[in-house]
Formats: sequence, C-alpha cells, structure tokens
Amino acid sequence: VLDPTTRWPRGEKPDHAGLLTFAGLPYTEDAAELAGVDVAVIGAPMDELVSDRPGTRFGPRAIRAAGGPPGRQVETGVDAMAELVVVDFGDAAVIPADPLASHANILQTVGEAVDAGAIPIVLGGDHSIAEPDVRACARRHGPLGLLHFDTHTDTGRDIYGVEVSHGTPMYRLVEDGIVDARRYAQVGLRGYWPGPEEFAWQERQGITAIPMHQVRAEGIAAALERALAVVGAGPAFLTVDVDVLDPAYAPGTGTPEPGGMTAADLLWACRTSAMRLELVGADVVEVAPTAVGAADTTALVADRIVREILTGIALRRRAAGAPA
Amino acid sequence: VLDPTTRWPRGEKPDHAGLLTFAGLPYTEDAAELAGVDVAVIGAPMDELVSDRPGTRFGPRAIRAAGGPPGRQVETGVDAMAELVVVDFGDAAVIPADPLASHANILQTVGEAVDAGAIPIVLGGDHSIAEPDVRACARRHGPLGLLHFDTHTDTGRDIYGVEVSHGTPMYRLVEDGIVDARRYAQVGLRGYWPGPEEFAWQERQGITAIPMHQVRAEGIAAALERALAVVGAGPAFLTVDVDVLDPAYAPGTGTPEPGGMTAADLLWACRTSAMRLELVGADVVEVAPTAVGAADTTALVADRIVREILTGIALRRRAAGAPA
Amino acid sequence: VLDPTTRWPRGEKPDHAGLLTFAGLPYTEDAAELAGVDVAVIGAPMDELVSDRPGTRFGPRAIRAAGGPPGRQVETGVDAMAELVVVDFGDAAVIPADPLASHANILQTVGEAVDAGAIPIVLGGDHSIAEPDVRACARRHGPLGLLHFDTHTDTGRDIYGVEVSHGTPMYRLVEDGIVDARRYAQVGLRGYWPGPEEFAWQERQGITAIPMHQVRAEGIAAALERALAVVGAGPAFLTVDVDVLDPAYAPGTGTPEPGGMTAADLLWACRTSAMRLELVGADVVEVAPTAVGAADTTALVADRIVREILTGIALRRRAAGAPA
Amino acid sequence: VLDPTTRWPRGEKPDHAGLLTFAGLPYTEDAAELAGVDVAVIGAPMDELVSDRPGTRFGPRAIRAAGGPPGRQVETGVDAMAELVVVDFGDAAVIPADPLASHANILQTVGEAVDAGAIPIVLGGDHSIAEPDVRACARRHGPLGLLHFDTHTDTGRDIYGVEVSHGTPMYRLVEDGIVDARRYAQVGLRGYWPGPEEFAWQERQGITAIPMHQVRAEGIAAALERALAVVGAGPAFLTVDVDVLDPAYAPGTGTPEPGGMTAADLLWACRTSAMRLELVGADVVEVAPTAVGAADTTALVADRIVREILTGIALRRRAAGAPA
Amino acid sequence: VLDPTTRWPRGEKPDHAGLLTFAGLPYTEDAAELAGVDVAVIGAPMDELVSDRPGTRFGPRAIRAAGGPPGRQVETGVDAMAELVVVDFGDAAVIPADPLASHANILQTVGEAVDAGAIPIVLGGDHSIAEPDVRACARRHGPLGLLHFDTHTDTGRDIYGVEVSHGTPMYRLVEDGIVDARRYAQVGLRGYWPGPEEFAWQERQGITAIPMHQVRAEGIAAALERALAVVGAGPAFLTVDVDVLDPAYAPGTGTPEPGGMTAADLLWACRTSAMRLELVGADVVEVAPTAVGAADTTALVADRIVREILTGIALRRRAAGAPA
Amino acid sequence: VLDPTTRWPRGEKPDHAGLLTFAGLPYTEDAAELAGVDVAVIGAPMDELVSDRPGTRFGPRAIRAAGGPPGRQVETGVDAMAELVVVDFGDAAVIPADPLASHANILQTVGEAVDAGAIPIVLGGDHSIAEPDVRACARRHGPLGLLHFDTHTDTGRDIYGVEVSHGTPMYRLVEDGIVDARRYAQVGLRGYWPGPEEFAWQERQGITAIPMHQVRAEGIAAALERALAVVGAGPAFLTVDVDVLDPAYAPGTGTPEPGGMTAADLLWACRTSAMRLELVGADVVEVAPTAVGAADTTALVADRIVREILTGIALRRRAAGAPA
Repeated sequence: VLDPTTRWPRGEKPDHAGLLTFAGLPYTEDAAELAGVDVAVIGAPMDELVSDRPGTRFGPRAIRAAGGPPGRQVETGVDAMAELVVVDFGDAAVIPADPLASHANILQTVGEAVDAGAIPIVLGGDHSIAEPDVRACARRHGPLGLLHFDTHTDTGRDIYGVEVSHGTPMYRLVEDGIVDARRYAQVGLRGYWPGPEEFAWQERQGITAIPMHQVRAEGIAAALERALAVVGAGPAFLTVDVDVLDPAYAPGTGTPEPGGMTAADLLWACRTSAMRLELVGADVVEVAPTAVGAADTTALVADRIVREILTGIALRRRAAGAPA
Repeated sequence: VLDPTTRWPRGEKPDHAGLLTFAGLPYTEDAAELAGVDVAVIGAPMDELVSDRPGTRFGPRAIRAAGGPPGRQVETGVDAMAELVVVDFGDAAVIPADPLASHANILQTVGEAVDAGAIPIVLGGDHSIAEPDVRACARRHGPLGLLHFDTHTDTGRDIYGVEVSHGTPMYRLVEDGIVDARRYAQVGLRGYWPGPEEFAWQERQGITAIPMHQVRAEGIAAALERALAVVGAGPAFLTVDVDVLDPAYAPGTGTPEPGGMTAADLLWACRTSAMRLELVGADVVEVAPTAVGAADTTALVADRIVREILTGIALRRRAAGAPA
Repeated sequence: VLDPTTRWPRGEKPDHAGLLTFAGLPYTEDAAELAGVDVAVIGAPMDELVSDRPGTRFGPRAIRAAGGPPGRQVETGVDAMAELVVVDFGDAAVIPADPLASHANILQTVGEAVDAGAIPIVLGGDHSIAEPDVRACARRHGPLGLLHFDTHTDTGRDIYGVEVSHGTPMYRLVEDGIVDARRYAQVGLRGYWPGPEEFAWQERQGITAIPMHQVRAEGIAAALERALAVVGAGPAFLTVDVDVLDPAYAPGTGTPEPGGMTAADLLWACRTSAMRLELVGADVVEVAPTAVGAADTTALVADRIVREILTGIALRRRAAGAPA
Repeated sequence: VLDPTTRWPRGEKPDHAGLLTFAGLPYTEDAAELAGVDVAVIGAPMDELVSDRPGTRFGPRAIRAAGGPPGRQVETGVDAMAELVVVDFGDAAVIPADPLASHANILQTVGEAVDAGAIPIVLGGDHSIAEPDVRACARRHGPLGLLHFDTHTDTGRDIYGVEVSHGTPMYRLVEDGIVDARRYAQVGLRGYWPGPEEFAWQERQGITAIPMHQVRAEGIAAALERALAVVGAGPAFLTVDVDVLDPAYAPGTGTPEPGGMTAADLLWACRTSAMRLELVGADVVEVAPTAVGAADTTALVADRIVREILTGIALRRRAAGAPA
Repeated sequence: VLDPTTRWPRGEKPDHAGLLTFAGLPYTEDAAELAGVDVAVIGAPMDELVSDRPGTRFGPRAIRAAGGPPGRQVETGVDAMAELVVVDFGDAAVIPADPLASHANILQTVGEAVDAGAIPIVLGGDHSIAEPDVRACARRHGPLGLLHFDTHTDTGRDIYGVEVSHGTPMYRLVEDGIVDARRYAQVGLRGYWPGPEEFAWQERQGITAIPMHQVRAEGIAAALERALAVVGAGPAFLTVDVDVLDPAYAPGTGTPEPGGMTAADLLWACRTSAMRLELVGADVVEVAPTAVGAADTTALVADRIVREILTGIALRRRAAGAPA
Repeated sequence: VLDPTTRWPRGEKPDHAGLLTFAGLPYTEDAAELAGVDVAVIGAPMDELVSDRPGTRFGPRAIRAAGGPPGRQVETGVDAMAELVVVDFGDAAVIPADPLASHANILQTVGEAVDAGAIPIVLGGDHSIAEPDVRACARRHGPLGLLHFDTHTDTGRDIYGVEVSHGTPMYRLVEDGIVDARRYAQVGLRGYWPGPEEFAWQERQGITAIPMHQVRAEGIAAALERALAVVGAGPAFLTVDVDVLDPAYAPGTGTPEPGGMTAADLLWACRTSAMRLELVGADVVEVAPTAVGAADTTALVADRIVREILTGIALRRRAAGAPA
C-alpha cells in the first residue's frame, strides 16, 4: 500500500500534487493488501458503449483530481475516511475498443475487492459498467436490491440493436436474476427515453419507477423513503448516474436532460441511502469531464457523491455499534 | 420531404449522424409539402441586433444538434412527434449584416408555414425575430395574445437609439396593434432593464408583467395561471427567451441574468401553456451556443422547450377530441 | 474623475466598449476626488494565497466586464447608482508573488476610501483580501460585526502551515480583535473543511455558524434573520465568497462545493443585509473567471451581488430619510 | 437532390444558415440521384475504435459547419465545385457502440457512390473507416495504390489485442490484397508508434515509409514526388489523417503528435496528389472538434483538405481535356 | 491624462491589475490632451458587419488585456513606448446594432487623433472599420497608399448584397479615391474568396495582390519589398487583418483560413513596413477573443503587431534624426 | 516500486487508465528504490511565483496525462525507456502559498534522486523551480553549465521587487556560483523583457544569449551548435521553458510570446543537447494546462520534450559503449 501523503511534513497533501488517488487515499493494486479494508474505490475508465457523447473514459481520473483531502463533513460531523478504512484500488484493466474485455476485467477487479470483504465503489465510465459491478457483488451476496438514481431506466433490451450498452445493463441484470426486480427502485426518471415497451417490461418485472416530476412534487425525502422501502433489507447496490442531476449541476455528461435533481438533494439521498441500506457495492457513472482539477464541477459532484456514500456507511456502522 | 432516418435499419438515427434536422424529423424547404403538417420548425439564425454578446446565429443549428430522436415523454406519456405531424422547414434566408432583410425573409418563411395551416415554432436567433414571427402569425389570425417568458420586457422604444433591436420587438408589436396588450403577459422579469419609462408605457397599454420575484414567491403554477388568464381565449403566440432561465440552466445566452427560473419550472410552464392556449405560433430565442452536440446544455434546454410545447399541443388536441 | 460615458451621444455606453469600470461608473484613482462619494468600488486582483485553483487575479476585471450599465432594479424599483454617488476607485497596487505587499497596498487603498467617508466594496481576489479590507474599515470604525457568506469558515490558524492564506483571514481578524466574534455570523457552510479544532475555536469565541443544510431547512429568510440578529446594530462588514453558491451558479471559483445556495437566495440576502445592517464595507471574492464578458456567469453574479448591496444601501438611506 | 441555396435571393447561403451540407452543396441520400456526379462527399461519424481520446463521431458535421460556400481558389484560380459535379451524399448509417455494423454500413454507402461512378470523399470518423472506404473502392477498381498522410502507420496487427481498430486498417487492407503494398506510400510518420515489428512487416511487404524528419529535411515537394512515384499509375486512394499536421494546425484530434506538417504543406500536397494520381476515392479522418462553426480550426483545415483534393481532381480533368 | 501606473511603488503595473489600457499606457478621451502625442491607440469594438462568426466587439479590450507593460524589444533594442509619446485614446462610441452610426463615431474619434497630429492605431473590431479609419486619415493627408495584410482582399462591391461590410471596405475606399489604387498592395491572399469579378476590378484599378503562395515561395522579405515598392513614398496606411496569419497563430478570428503567415514573419513585416513607409495611420482587426488575459493568444499577437508598428515608427524617427 | 501496467494482460496500459505516472512508468516515492535508476522524473507543481497567468501547479499532472506509453521513436529508432531505467519519482512536497517551503522540498526531492545517481528530470511548475533543481544537481556535481531554452532570460534581480520569482532564478544561480556563466547559453530570446540592465549584467557575467531572430536566421542546427560549444564539456543542466515555443505550439503557458520556435526544432534541439552534453539534470517548465488528456497539446509537447531528452541520453550512452 502506497500512502501519497508521507512526503508532506504534516501529512497534508494538496490535491493537485502527489500521487493521484481518490481523496489522496492510500493506493494499492494488490488484492492481498485489501485485508481489513472497508471500502475500495475502483476506476472503470471506458466509454465505448455510449449512444451519444463519449468522454467518460476520462471520468475516474477527473473525479480523483477534483476532490480534496478527507475531512469531517460539516453537516454530519463525520469524517468517514477516518472512521472507515478506505483505499484506492486503482483502475480495472480496460481495453480500448474492446468493451467486453473491459467488462470482464472490471468484473475481475471489483470481484477481488468483494472477495476481500471490502465494499467496492466504482467510478465510471459509462453506465454499462454497472453490469460487471453488480455481477461481481452478486456473485458473493446473491441477488441484490438496487437503488438507481438516473434520468434513464437503462432497461433497454438493446440500443440501436446493441445488447451490451450503457442503456441496457439493468435489463440484463434483472433478466439474469442478478438484481431482484421487486427490490429495484429507480429515482429521477424524465425526458424522452425509454418508451412504452421498456416501461411495460419494467412493470411486468415489478420494478418501481419514481420519475423526477414525482420527486419534485413530493420532495426528495418522501420519494427516497418510498425507494428505500422497495429496496428494503438485504444486500443492495447503489448506482448513481450523474445525469440524474440537472445539467446545471452536472454539465459534463454524455446524455444530459434538463429538469433534474439538485446536487443538495442527490448528495443527501446518497448519504441517507448508504446509511439505511445494506450496501454491498456502489458506482457513480457517466462523468465526462472537460476541465482541469476542481474546475470540472461534474467530477467534483461525483467526488462528493462518493463521500456522501462513505459518510452514510460510516453512520450505519456507528449505529450498528460496530467499531467504526 | 426528406426523411433522414431511412438509411438506418430500424429507423433509429443517432443524433450526431445523418442530416441535421430538429429531432431527426423529416425536412423540407418547399411550402407545398406542408399540407397536413401540424407544426413546422423553422430556424432564424441571426444576431446582428443584440446589445451585448452575439452568437445566436449559431443557435438553430445547435438546438438541432443537441436533442435526440423523438420519444414518449416520461412525465406525460405523450410522444408528441408521433401524434402530430411535425417537420423541419429549414432556416429562413437570413442575410448577414442586413438584419432588416433577414426579418423580411423570416416573415416570408414563417408566413408560408402559417399559410399552410401549420403552427410555426421558430428557433432563434436574437429576440428581434419575434417581430417577424408574430407578424407572420397575426397576418392570418389577427391581433394575438402573447405569453412571453423573459428576463427583459423587450419593450424598449429603442436601444442605443436603434428601433429594430432585440430589446424592442414587443414595443413595436403592441404599438402596431399586432399584439393585443390586454392579452399580453410577461413572466420572469428581473434585473436592471428596462426602466420606469418602459414600465410606464407597459402600464398604459395594459400589459401584465409578472416579475421573477413573484414567480418565486407564489410558485410557477400560480404565476402561470395568472398569465394564462391574461392571455385567455383566442389566438396566441408563445415567445420564450432562454435568458428567463437562471444562467445555471442556460449559460449560453447573450444577456444572462442571475436569479432566474429553473429548467423544470420553465419546461412545465411551456407545456402547460401550449395545452391551455390556442397557440398559433411560438419561438425560442437567444441561444448562443459554445459547445458541440449535447454538451451545449443551453441548446439542449431549448430543444426541450420545443418538445414541451409540442407535447402541450398534442395534449390539447387530444382533449379536443381531434384525431391527433 | 473620468466619466466613461461622455463619448456616447445619450450617455449610454455599451458594456463591451469604452473604459472598463464597474458598471461604466466614473473612475478615479485620486483619493482627493472621493469627497461626497457614497461607495467606492475597489479591485484587489491577487490569488497567491489560495490552496487549490488560482485565477482570482483576473476576478476584478472580469466582474467589471460582465455587468451592464446601471439601471433601476426590477424587483425593488431602485436605481441605486442614481441614488448613491458610486465611483470605481481602481485597483489596489497588488504585487505579483508578494502577497503581503499586496495586502499592505490593499489596506492603503481601501483605507483611503474609508477615510474619505465612502463605503468600500472590494472585488477579489482570493479571500485573504478580507484581512486588509476589514482592517481598513475597523481602523476608522472600531471592531466590526461581520456577516460572512461562504462554504468555508476561513478561520484556520494556518493552511498547510501558512498563516496568511485565503483560509485564515477570519481567525486573524477575530484574534486581533478587529472583528467582534459575538457579532460574527457565517452563512452557508458545508463540505469537508474546516475540522473540529476550528469549530471548537469558533465556539469558544462565540461565533455563530449557520451551515447550508440549516439554510435549506429553514429557508434563507429565517436563516438570514438569525444572522442579522447576531450582527445587530453597530458598524458591520459584509464578506461574500462566491463559493457559497452552488457551483451551478458560480462555476468559476477555486474551491467549489456542491450543495450550495441559489443565486436568487444570495442576491436577496445581500440586498437585505445591506439594508438592515450598518455597513461600513463589503467585499465579493473568489471569482476566477474563464470566459469573456457576460459569458463568464460567475463574474456576472458577482457584479449582481455588488448591485444588490448597493440597492440595500440605497434603501437604507431612503428609510433613514437621508437625501439619497 | 435538395439544393440548400434556393431560399437565398442570389443563391448565396451563409454557412451558419440553411441545411448543413458540405460547402452548402446539394444533398441527397438516394443513390439513384448520383448519376453524373463526379464526387460524393460522405460522412462516417464514428469513434468507437480509438485507443485514446474519442470525439471523431462529431467530425463530419463539424467539417460541414466549418467551411464556407464554394469559390475560386486564389492560388490556382480553380473553382472546383463549379467545374465538377459534387454532392453531399449524407452520412453512412453508423450504429453507436457497434463499430462493425457501422463499417458494414459505411462499405454499403461508399459502395453506392462508387457504383454510381462518383469518387467518394469520406469524412471521418476515426481512421478505422479507411478499411470500408478502401474496400468499397477496390471492389470496383481492383487492388489500389494508397497515398497515406499520417503520424502513425496504422499497420498494427492489433491494438491492445483489438484487430479492427483505428491503428490497424492498413495492415488488414494490405494483408487482404486490397491495397497493393508496392504502391503504398506513407508520409509524415513520427513519434513513438508503431514499433519494430510493424516496421519489419511493412518492409517485408514493400511499403514505402517517408517519416516526418525526411519531409522536413528534403521539403514537401521532394518527399511528395517520391511518394507519388511509389503510388504511380493505376487506381489509387488518398487517406489523410489530420494528425499528420502538427497539433498547432490540428489540435482537435485524438492522438496528436508534435513536430508535424504545416497546413500549407499538407494542403499543397493533397491538391498535387489529387492532380497527379488516378484517384478513385479519398478520406479525411480523425477530426475531433471542440468548437462551434469556423471556430473549430481542425474541422476547418479538414474542409480545406477536401477542397484541395477537389481542386486537384478538377485540374487533372482539365489536363485530360475532359469537359470539366 | 490618467496614468495607470502611479499607484505602484516603482511604476511597474502588472498587466492584470489597474486600469485597462493598451500596455498600461496613459489614458485620455480628451482630444485636447493629445498635443505632443505621437501615437494614439483607439478601440473600435464592433462586429455587426461580419459574414461569419461575430465576436470582434470584444477585440480591443482583449488586446489591451493580453499584453504586458512596455519594454525594450529584444531583437531591435528599441523601447518604442519610451521613445514615442503613446497614449490610449479609448474606444470610439460604437452603437450596438447600428454599424453606420458606429462608423461615424469611429471616423470622429480617429479624426480627432489625426487632427491632433498623432498617428492613430485602431484596434478592431471587424474589418469594416478600415473604412472610417482610412477616411479619417485621408481627410487630412489626402489620398493614401495602403499596405494590407489579409487572407481576403475585402474588395467586394457587396457581401450578400450588403455594401458596407467587413468584405467591402477596400472597394469603397478605392472607388471613392480615398486610397490610391496604384499605391495599394495586398499581402497574404489565399483561400476561396473573392472571385474573378473582384480580381478583375482590382486589376483594372491597378491594385497589387501578392498571394500567400508567393509569400511562401519567395519569402516574406522579398514579398514585402515588392509591396513596399508599390506603396512607395507619400502618406500611407497599414491595415492588418489577423486572419492573414495561419489559424495556428490566430485561432480567434471570424473567418480563419489555413495556410497563412507565421507570427514571426508578420511581426517582422509590420515593423519593417512602419519603418519604411510614411505611416499616417494603422489598424489591427478581426480579433475575436475567447480566453482571459494572455491566454487569448490571438489578442496577444495583435498586441505584438501594434508594438512592432510602434517599434518601426520609432526606428524611422531615429533614422530621420528626429528627437525620438 | 509500483508498476502500473501489471493489471493489463500484455502490459499495455492505455494512457487514460491506471495509475497516473509519466509514460505509465513504475512509480516510487522511496529514494531507497532509486538504486540503479538512470533517470527519475519528478513533479514540482507550483505557480505562486509567476508575474502573469498562474496555472502551472497543474502542469506535472497534465504532462503525465498527455503522453502515451513508451515506444521506439520513429526518427531515431531508439526506445529510450527500454534502454534506460526510468522511474516516476512522484512530486516534491509543494506547499500552497508558501513557495519558499516548496523550493526547499523540491531541493530535497531532486537531491535524493541526484544522490541516488539518477538524472532528475523535473516537470514544472513555474520557472522558479529551476533554482532548487539546479542547486540540487550542483550540490553533487559542482558548478554547472546551463543550456536554457526560453523566451525570457529569467535573469532579473527582482520582478516587481520580488527576488525569488519565475523571472529571477538564473540571476541567483549565476550570482551564487551555482551556474558557471561562461558555460551558460540561452536560446530563443525575444519579446519585451528583460531590459538593458539585465542584458548588461549578462554580458558582464559572460553569458551567451542567442535570440530567436538569430535562430530563425541561421537555423536551429547552427544556433544550437553555438550554444553547445558554450556549454562544452563538464556537467550541465538543461532547462526548457515551453514558452520558447511559439504560442501556436504551446498555448498553455503563462507568459506566451509570438514569434517562437517550432515544436520540431525544439524537440530536435532537446534530443541533440541531451546526446551531446554531459547532462546531470533537466527540467521542463511553465506548462499551464487547460484541457483533459492529450487534448492539452502544451502538456503533450512537454511530454515529448522529456522523451527527446531521454532519447538523447540513451544515444549518448550507446555512443559511450555503456550497457544501455
């Protein structure tokens, strides 16, 4: 394990200097070093399976560059990265122009974290990575509940005839029994995709869809409560597509859709979900950065989403009386 | 009529490929082909009459490039472009550096759509185009009601002494009796222009101004209800300046003003207005794009404004029992 | 005093033309010309003391370039720059790579305005300039109340061991008795800095911190009311770090933090504060522009913050029966 | 065939207005309308097979947007688009995330142009499209000579194990006998790829490589003369990767390499090649635009490359006494 | 006259601070203060008369922001702004959306400088401003010789039917006898405009056109020598359109054309021209900036063009034995 | 030592994935692991000492992100990173807002590499880092020869009164006897700084200045030959400020100056210098990136400068018969 802060006299590494890791956390690519690790942050830098603008291959690195060092969150008073053992487990071995090979390698790397007992939090990458992310978790924990923040359901059977796509992972995970449709809630849907067929399939499966206009109407707290009730007890995965945010809050994404969530609502919802659910894994996807460092506000909000998830996990462990 | 989707095996054209038309819709420049068309989308790519930053000459093309294919809107379940016959009628023949000639040609092209019985939806272009847009509609339908979303009233008698400007179209339309001042409502006003003279003139005319702080105070639903009551029954025009949005939602515009509407509110208001009013035409103006494809979120929100208007028109026709 | 509008036939200078001054106001660098001036706008273009992204040295000029001419504010009907005598007093003599020399010169220039009886409004520059800004005001008015809109408390004893930094001015001002901790309220705090030590120090001093989640929970009106009560009567300074806004509203800043205020709330709060408090000075800081003219929406919102402060001052003088 | 200039009084369409076609030329997607056409410009907007930065899916549209109307070239006095019948044949039906399907459709569309007797000029897209481009031409004309301007040889057997890639088309075309290695010249090679294996294969095949440092040493005229001698008489294809230019001249490309050609040299070389060779097809690839309209100078130089090729073809026809 | 450097202890003002003037020079808008001034720098920030991308209204301010303080030029050892009395005479009173009014005011302001005996150097603005610039000089000095660096001849009779345009000033100046066609040389022409009619007119008038391919072939020194011989003795004007540079050197312009001059050649040519000719005025036009400060390299090269002209003037005065 | 390529099946790591190191090389921060290392690449990400635009604190990371994997250079056939043992030694512990502390830490880290027998190549950072870079090398090797590519001499005694600045390192190194003035050659000088005093001091010291106009006049080969003769035998340091390039080739730098070197010339000169001189250290400075990955062409050219230096070192070792 390589600790990027040792060169600094007081262990305070500026974010633009030193080894680029998530929050300046220790780094390893060796699964053997994950023993005792609570959370492993993993990058999945690929974008070959998008239907619109590419660029998410630069997402993981941008997220790592946008955030600052760990700290106590002002709202909760929790310093999650002090309470939990979190490491940056590096990037999965993506293969440019061979997305299926990339998926296999993502499955492998996320699986190593899962096998080591760590909760993987995967930084995308396009949303197709949810498929290996969730499969890796389910391989150990069985069929999973799924909480899914997104503009789109990503439950297409195919996109332009392509079956493995950033628009289809959820269809495949449900059809393969990896995700339990009865424990699957979608929050933030809006816009012009998918169509009636996909929604009919969702209904037949028993998936719960909470569109954005309902979130606005009832408020995020009530909407999330409904979603959490659907996911319920048992192992669950949290997948966050940054395009669930209004483009004002996340302009750097490939298929933005106006009318979305505010950052404040989403950050609260991510923390609360991580506190309330039995999370076995999570991912934050579809960040297509265009600027350097914290100037890329989409990468920044993705960094904050990860931190809120960590904060929620820490709060849950506190509540469980676990030695956090 | 040229259908840009025929080369694709399933008729699903990716938005970045093929002929550039609004939503990938069929394209024609021939008025004879407008028979049976419900809505004609028309570009008016000019910016010679702005007082601050130019660039809206690139607006229509950017709006066409930002949006994806038609689809069923998640919130309403309506696929407006399936229910209505909508075509892209191309751009009016703007003449660089000769804005009055451009106006004449916009009048001509919009007029062709109106004469064919289609509702024109014009993509700006600076807001000066509202003058030919509305004149073309009024030529057939008589004096019109006007619903106007904007930061500014655009009712100057002149701007820096210039009488035909993006700050004066509404003054001219009212003074010429093209717009019925009693049926004219403005929503979203804020900032530092215009001054007491313009507001005094407005009051004398009987124009209803609903400033942004009132929208915030009473909510968009109540504010819009007031505005719709003003416009009332009879033929009406809807003009949407994207700068009514807060710059967070529409940074790509020439005279942005902080403190504006959210995209969600504006999109809802546009759909509702199109459903409630007897629309004979509409325009969406002041998009000054800076990025490529959907990365230009201002052009994207303008695309969505048009779609919400189409959705509203479709809903209105449904309600009227018209064979949509 | 140089009036930049005289060349224009009607005194209406377009914002992109003519001498670059705040709102196109008269310009002087001569303290002797400040007699009778109500407010002096001063630039402090430096960024050597930041911990993350630099660029605020371009802030003052960008703010001047982003805004238009003075005008009557739509919401209040006040044309503050007509009611008050406001001048652009130019920039303090910042010295690149010598931030302490820059601070000394800022103290000097702001002090000249204060000594002339004007209220200085300083355009940053990084937040370290608050130290000379406030010191200059306190030198004349004694220990000051402080209303502070920010994501961060800026009360570090040091940042990476550096004692004069954009993260420490408030610590230093309180420790030196320049700011009265009992009359010091912070609004909008969130994110991951500072930590328990700084908050413990704040508490010991009696500083009032209103974090962002409370602002969201109770609304800006109630939160501001609490803050105004803390600052109370007596001379007060208003310091506004644009990063208190959500990055959606102010992307051009060095240490953005998602989950922040809306522009509408902040603008209202600035105006109200200026109306309710006995302001002796103000600053608006941390604008790191990246675009030209009004296209830089962060500089634009900073311009609007200044105008709301001016509007509040004008309203206060009206209320006081002062010959505005 | 749709002529985009008919709405303009004098047939002079501004480039930012009207139907987006190459140089504002007539547009058709109907192969039956290609009779009598000399050159068909075709888009191939895909980028799934790149190894580094994607974005060339936006290339064809950007090239069409960057250039102005046809005109007489100042240097030669030739107005190629007046002398030749050139149409925009639209984009091939690319399928996002399915590059092999895209290739099949590119082969189909380019083949239609070839079968109609037109010379196809294909706008990329990543360089993998050279494979269907050249195959479509060779299907009719037999094995082809190839003149190839590029930083990279693109003769990898695979890239990261991927055999159909933007780094492998030339290997595949030579191995399949589509390109005659003895008539294949590469101009502008430099940088750090490919390695000894690829160069050894090239040598075994008899391919002629003229690296950039030789171009600089002997001058473009001599270097090109050598290349033209290699390609010689007989049907030939011209493939131009814009990254052969120094990044100063073509920053918008996925794998830029400093030390490249100047625009003046490349433009001259393209025209001269088209004049001297028996061109049966050409492509211009790897344009990854980032700006709007002519502001994207990489797309602009690609537009100019196409025009120089057209000029060369026109000059060749003049020389041949053909009724141009 | 306002000297922006007095606040700095050693008179060394950083370029991003203090009053924005050309090179930090003294500023006045009062013609009475021009007595004894050698050169007056004047801005003409307009862009209403362009045929393609607008934005040059931001040019003069960007040029002022891009350059640093005066200094001794390394190549010549001349500190022109120490040898000559140079002031920033501010911007002419441009009127947005009323280009003819702007022209009248440019004529007025440039005329004031001319009448005061100063050489005006005007910062554009689109190239249409050459018309008032040259007219103002000719009003005093009689018909002028003209040295014109540009991609385009700007000798259209009209552009899209518009007679006062950025593509027509030279036609108008020659037709009106303001410029002596026999003493008019154009350097750097290339691309696809204008056509045979314009060139035929030029020939009839006796204008000398030196296209870019000749500049490349013979070298800038020989090409310039030819041009200088044409202009010869007598009062002359120098007009520099930055698009004469290759877009690599000046990307921020509205109608860029690949294959242009290098910055080094143009800078040398401007200095040499100013040294060799009897300059009575000059302008530098078509800068459409997109970045802040020196990051806008097009504005920077425009600043350097002005400095080379100043250096040439200073060298000429030295040679003339004038007390420089 | 951490090897970032082990996760990839064939050891081929795409540049946008995996641990961010220079060229994907092995990484260590432990000086003990430098045994046997030929070259250690070190980052020095600071920018507090600039006089104009900051941003070079993001330089080292951008350079690492811009380049691809090692490979055989096409021109020379050398794969330097295969012949030499090169590691990424991480960043020195820069301290934001405390440039002197940063310098001390740079001295320390570079010194560790020197002490381990490796040649340090330092990625800046502003040019002030040359001071600790060179001092660290001279501490072991004694007074050094210096080859310096730059627009500016950086031999100011102070800049705005600041003695440790990016404009003064060479003055200090010469005055302190760290650099031997008789063995110090500057190449590429141009523009407006420094002035006669600095040049007089240079002359008195015996420094050799080769301005850019001489490089253009005699060609890079002859100019470099002169410079190499000056530096001669004995330990030498190579310092490359990317602003020696024309802004066309390196727009992302803080003090660009038109009229500079081409990338091809500079790359050749760097390789040749490293081959001909007895290099004991080098740095590449003043990269202020603005784009992501290889899209930042300034960072890319800086990466290539480092590779050319490595290639030159490898060639020198070959020539020396060393087991490369």
